[in-house]
Amino acid sequence: MRPQVSINADRLLANLRTLGQIGGRPGGGVSRLALTPQDLAGRRQVLRWMEELGLEITIDALGNTVGVRKGLSELSPVMTGSHIDTVDGGGIYDGNLGVLAGIEVLATLDEHNISTKRPLAVAFFTNEEGARFAPDMMGSLVFEGSLDLETALATVGIDGTTVAQNLDAIDMRGTAPCGKPDVHAFIELHIEQGPRLEREGITIGIVEGVQGICWTEFELDGVSNHAGTTPMSLRHDPSVLVGETIVFARELTKHHPGVQLATVGSVTLKPNLVNVIPRTARFTVDLRNTDGVALDQAEQATIDFVYRQARAEGLTVRHRNLARFAPVAFASSVVDRIEAVATSHGLSNIRMPSGAGHDAQVLARCCPAGMIFVPSLGGISHNPREHTDARDIESGANVLLHALLELANA
Amino acid sequence: MRPQVSINADRLLANLRTLGQIGGRPGGGVSRLALTPQDLAGRRQVLRWMEELGLEITIDALGNTVGVRKGLSELSPVMTGSHIDTVDGGGIYDGNLGVLAGIEVLATLDEHNISTKRPLAVAFFTNEEGARFAPDMMGSLVFEGSLDLETALATVGIDGTTVAQNLDAIDMRGTAPCGKPDVHAFIELHIEQGPRLEREGITIGIVEGVQGICWTEFELDGVSNHAGTTPMSLRHDPSVLVGETIVFARELTKHHPGVQLATVGSVTLKPNLVNVIPRTARFTVDLRNTDGVALDQAEQATIDFVYRQARAEGLTVRHRNLARFAPVAFASSVVDRIEAVATSHGLSNIRMPSGAGHDAQVLARCCPAGMIFVPSLGGISHNPREHTDARDIESGANVLLHALLELANA
Repeated sequence: MRPQVSINADRLLANLRTLGQIGGRPGGGVSRLALTPQDLAGRRQVLRWMEELGLEITIDALGNTVGVRKGLSELSPVMTGSHIDTVDGGGIYDGNLGVLAGIEVLATLDEHNISTKRPLAVAFFTNEEGARFAPDMMGSLVFEGSLDLETALATVGIDGTTVAQNLDAIDMRGTAPCGKPDVHAFIELHIEQGPRLEREGITIGIVEGVQGICWTEFELDGVSNHAGTTPMSLRHDPSVLVGETIVFARELTKHHPGVQLATVGSVTLKPNLVNVIPRTARFTVDLRNTDGVALDQAEQATIDFVYRQARAEGLTVRHRNLARFAPVAFASSVVDRIEAVATSHGLSNIRMPSGAGHDAQVLARCCPAGMIFVPSLGGISHNPREHTDARDIESGANVLLHALLELANA
Repeated sequence: MRPQVSINADRLLANLRTLGQIGGRPGGGVSRLALTPQDLAGRRQVLRWMEELGLEITIDALGNTVGVRKGLSELSPVMTGSHIDTVDGGGIYDGNLGVLAGIEVLATLDEHNISTKRPLAVAFFTNEEGARFAPDMMGSLVFEGSLDLETALATVGIDGTTVAQNLDAIDMRGTAPCGKPDVHAFIELHIEQGPRLEREGITIGIVEGVQGICWTEFELDGVSNHAGTTPMSLRHDPSVLVGETIVFARELTKHHPGVQLATVGSVTLKPNLVNVIPRTARFTVDLRNTDGVALDQAEQATIDFVYRQARAEGLTVRHRNLARFAPVAFASSVVDRIEAVATSHGLSNIRMPSGAGHDAQVLARCCPAGMIFVPSLGGISHNPREHTDARDIESGANVLLHALLELANA
């Protein structure tokens, strides 16, 4: 069952490839870090497409760019969009799909002479990736108001220059007020960046919210000693507690409320020699859960475990929080509508959290927001091998089209 | 209860300090790596002491040095000794104590006009530490015959020069045949280099043998992925198996036959980032046991565990053996005699394995051999803070004196 009005998948894919060649690398992959000359070239291409549609384009002081298609009313627009900056050696879909699908939706409406009650807007936000300037989602944070514009402009990047200097260098420091236009509702189409949809053979992910994140770094001090001459009963071996905590964290994910994720991605032992009991261990625990209370409990349980076991092994512990984001719940009005559209299109769909951060979670603070996920082959992203099948891109863009239409006419 | 004849502790301690100042470092500690100018200066000092006792000194083609005190017979001598090379920044006792206590024993016999049936010899073997040239225990291996002289001479050290070049540079390539004199029995006095004697308040360790050693390196290949977007059920996380193996190895030491030691001293995850499931993990397991069969079983149990768990997590595994030494059992004739002497001197003593390697374990292949341990404060060695109390040094040297006397007169 195909919807009556559909996007032009060939054009959308061609545009993705065109944009993907800007900053493209000989061996594959794209490097268009925020506010670089490559980013400028990408912005110019997207601005050209926006201009061809006759959108009213505004650029704010951080380079956030919005193109508005007039509605039948002067009400606040329904917005879609994402980002076009990439990591160093990323794929052509992450972010870019959300922006170009938005442009494709507006082009389709033009071709079918479809007007909407509310204006429709497509936006791309500066420096979503955070690969050159921290924090990530910088543009949407300034647009939404959580991050002060002056702070963002003064941010020093990995090459020692500021956001302001780079905005000026590419002449993308605009004059539009940050946070304008007011947004009635926001939907972002994005690749999943995880393996679940592909593995489960599902086309559309109805994103209910974004997981909360808690990163904890533990530093353990033990007593370095000879692996041959130190009886087990006299050891104070930090590596044992690293192992116990890895096992604890994996077990936690099996029993903890909500969908609890746990990753120990970084372990550093010193001196890290085969026959020496380590003196120190530093390791991280990345905990995620869509349920904020459960996440806090998981964090506390992990900290309690480490301190308890450290006493048993005779270690001293320090810990610090490296990152903490509360879970975001998207507005049911938007989530339900996306789900209804996907279902009415005959597309398999499932409600799921987003494991990664996205501009939509920031926009969710100032308007009802939601996201549409399409499958990532192998769950791979931030990698030249990032891929989403053409049919899934088409399906996702059509769900975006009709969800936007419904919101704009409601 | 003091023995009738006793060593002169003040002289022994003064000699230890004198030798410890050669290659001594401003901030403490000693650096007399094998065959360096510092080692030469140390050798000259020890040769001077040997000459003062009128010993018959021989130096073989690897620089192994033996000083023999005549006996009443022409029988093969009873030998003691150790090494005088140190690690970079070691202490003044490791090895040196065994050599200087041997010299002190002979000086004491001279002062008391005590003759022995068999000759007594004191030796220092070249490059026991292995800190500059691998393998360690090189000198005793050549003396005993397990290591070919030409191979040892051609060994290239950490600075790119050979053993032969350095022997020639310090003029210590001697003319005595390797492996001479034949040794009737060998006893080595050494610091424990572990914490057990101090912790248990015991003065003398009666070393029954040297633990077997098995080092295994495991390399795990998983699938690197986003810590937020990858459900637990779809992970192939090598860090989890590292943790499980650390816990497995610690548990093994509680239930395995013999005195089983296990250490995971080295862990390397890649890419080692807080929010990325690692792609690969490399880690080592150091297993030690005085029982060779039990050690082999522990190794196999660990390998089986890693491969079984790898299948469950969907990882691929490679492993390789990095080192393997069978346990050494010292001759009961020597061990029993040391124990009897220590007990008759009223010294607290305990039978124990050596966790580290020593020249005595090599000599054990060609003659009955044994070792005497004295406490290491805090179990610390290979460190400027290495320390053994003067009273313990005196006790150990007196046990050495009387055990040598008994063996030489038996």
